[in-house]
Amino acid sequence: MTVRSGLVSDFRPIPGVRVGVARAGLYASDRDDIAVFEVAPGAACAAVFTRNAFCAAPVTVARAHLTASAPRYLLVNAGNANAGTGERGLSDALACCAALARLGSVKAGEVIPYSTGVIGEPLPVDRICSAIPDALTGLADDHWQKAARAIMTTDTVPKGISEQGQIDGEPFTITGICKGSGMICPDMATMLAFLATDVSIDPGVLRRCLVVAVDQSFNRITVDGDTSTNDACTLVATGKSNARLNASDREGEGVFTAALVRVCESLAEALIHDAEGATKFITVEVKDGRDDAECLSVAYAIAHSPLVKTAFFASDPNWGRILAVVGRAGLAELDVGKVEIWLDEVRIVRGGERDPGYSEAAGQRVMSREKITVSIRLGRGGHAAKVLTSDLSDDYVRINADYRS
Amino acid sequence: MTVRSGLVSDFRPIPGVRVGVARAGLYASDRDDIAVFEVAPGAACAAVFTRNAFCAAPVTVARAHLTASAPRYLLVNAGNANAGTGERGLSDALACCAALARLGSVKAGEVIPYSTGVIGEPLPVDRICSAIPDALTGLADDHWQKAARAIMTTDTVPKGISEQGQIDGEPFTITGICKGSGMICPDMATMLAFLATDVSIDPGVLRRCLVVAVDQSFNRITVDGDTSTNDACTLVATGKSNARLNASDREGEGVFTAALVRVCESLAEALIHDAEGATKFITVEVKDGRDDAECLSVAYAIAHSPLVKTAFFASDPNWGRILAVVGRAGLAELDVGKVEIWLDEVRIVRGGERDPGYSEAAGQRVMSREKITVSIRLGRGGHAAKVLTSDLSDDYVRINADYRS
Repeated sequence: MTVRSGLVSDFRPIPGVRVGVARAGLYASDRDDIAVFEVAPGAACAAVFTRNAFCAAPVTVARAHLTASAPRYLLVNAGNANAGTGERGLSDALACCAALARLGSVKAGEVIPYSTGVIGEPLPVDRICSAIPDALTGLADDHWQKAARAIMTTDTVPKGISEQGQIDGEPFTITGICKGSGMICPDMATMLAFLATDVSIDPGVLRRCLVVAVDQSFNRITVDGDTSTNDACTLVATGKSNARLNASDREGEGVFTAALVRVCESLAEALIHDAEGATKFITVEVKDGRDDAECLSVAYAIAHSPLVKTAFFASDPNWGRILAVVGRAGLAELDVGKVEIWLDEVRIVRGGERDPGYSEAAGQRVMSREKITVSIRLGRGGHAAKVLTSDLSDDYVRINADYRS
Repeated sequence: MTVRSGLVSDFRPIPGVRVGVARAGLYASDRDDIAVFEVAPGAACAAVFTRNAFCAAPVTVARAHLTASAPRYLLVNAGNANAGTGERGLSDALACCAALARLGSVKAGEVIPYSTGVIGEPLPVDRICSAIPDALTGLADDHWQKAARAIMTTDTVPKGISEQGQIDGEPFTITGICKGSGMICPDMATMLAFLATDVSIDPGVLRRCLVVAVDQSFNRITVDGDTSTNDACTLVATGKSNARLNASDREGEGVFTAALVRVCESLAEALIHDAEGATKFITVEVKDGRDDAECLSVAYAIAHSPLVKTAFFASDPNWGRILAVVGRAGLAELDVGKVEIWLDEVRIVRGGERDPGYSEAAGQRVMSREKITVSIRLGRGGHAAKVLTSDLSDDYVRINADYRS
């Protein structure tokens, strides 16, 4: 299916970052399932994590380690989320960090752990620790694509992208990968995303840039409304290029942020392209609202509606379902007579009812596309918001009914 | 499937109410699709309607008519929701009321219209008006079951129940029917529910009783989180029995309200039993919360989670998904160490992790049942809330992908 494009182009290496993968045997199939990122000394790092109160053990450990010192290694495993595992989960995550730290001759607190997979099962620490030497032996600056594969769970394609820019005439590069396919409604962060750049940058500025980029990308997508326990987005800046971003350089910060937003948007789009069971890529735009919050709430209400999502799956221009969602989204004093609903270039609803110029054939033409934009115009202000989502297919149900078997 | 029980027992007639049905041809199949309730003069009436801002034309007309006078006829059609139809929808609904009023020798304002079915198509007024005489010819006090069938859309079984009680030794009866299968997350009312009683009662008291009953029943169920444009619950009190409820009779009001709650709960349960594609009947209980609102928000978060619902469909005790939802439900200062998660009699999570006594076999045993109660204990207060829902099957997707074809 065309929708399932993973964006993996030719990854550009980031000087100061080497990547290695290995097979720890967390899956029955013959595949890599751990990835190690080695970061040169002196790099800055920023990260955002899930707001889920039941956050996974590696999230708790990662937060603590990142507060204490800059990371030298990121250690990722697929196949097990190490979430809902209590005290044992914390000591398991720390044990993996310690094993890698010993081999890499760094402190355990300089290793940041990440896990993704089934919730509630004990982490197979021994298998992961046994595979770490293989990952370290294979470290190379051009193994980003291998890492993008190693961190996949129900993903069907690896996802990643590189972007280049210039600050004061000095080129820089941002390279990022991510994984995620279901349980996706990031809040503050995405599933797992790993980004690196060779810019030289103050950690506070780096964090500001990351928060802006995540908010405009990963925090604007949803597959099923289920925010994961393990979401994390980490950005390392090695400072190995000549591109330097001083804390006072507003223009440079704008350039870098813009490039970072493009990378994060591309990765977020790749997540939706690979959404579980998805056959359609849906953009929901809500315009002319009183504030951003109400636009976003209408957009999410549409993006989460099982009835709207199944209508997209069926390529059925059953626009009454969209209208019903706009009506139940809880907007105070909504004048339905001013609401317009568009599918791509076709206006369906105008003045609270079917546009006289609308024809079922026109609706059908749009709905048969693989990429569709739903636009809602609320007619009561100048604010807007956009959310990306997928349709709801019987494959989504099948994938999630079979996930553990 | 055992789950699909419709509760239709032997309906008890309500003196002062006669019911008739007819075939207007709004469906291709050979079935009744309109129902008429004739109400004797002097009855009291209370009704609650959807809060959807895009409420259907019949809802707007019904609200206006009920404000002006007590109803003499309720006119219901299936097959077309007359929603998203603008000004024309209003005049279409009024035209149907006028036709019935003429034949019944009442004012148009004494006819209350209700519609359910596809949104956005013009109401076939001529067909409905042509069928009204047949419905009137067939009026009888024992046609409740026929009406329960005539108002079905994607419902697979008719739904209704009768309940009897006594006030000051005088017996009274409540009989009710409802329809609804998808687009169910009532807010203030249900899909369509029609209830009648022979109690003699002040309209203000009647309304108070209805609001209490609806809040504890229809407002506590969800199939897919989609609140319909046409939800309405109407209760007629004919006063034809000797059971009289004075405005000051607190004890009698308690007895009547309790009976009404039982009727509404039974009907709400019947809606969930007949939820689109459902194979499981799920009760979500959230206890020990700081207030009712937070218990309800956790309960709805679980009841709306596609991942939790597909796990139920698969009979998979994938409890990590439930834990993840509790964590993302947005409770401030949640101490996950105090949270417990139970499936029926089996405690799965205790202290934020898997109960040491839990076994996959025990989880599997519960998940294979058709009726399952998920209990969440938040461990931070004395409040509780309960929501009923269904699982999410590939049949739900198929039904809603095929609905218009």
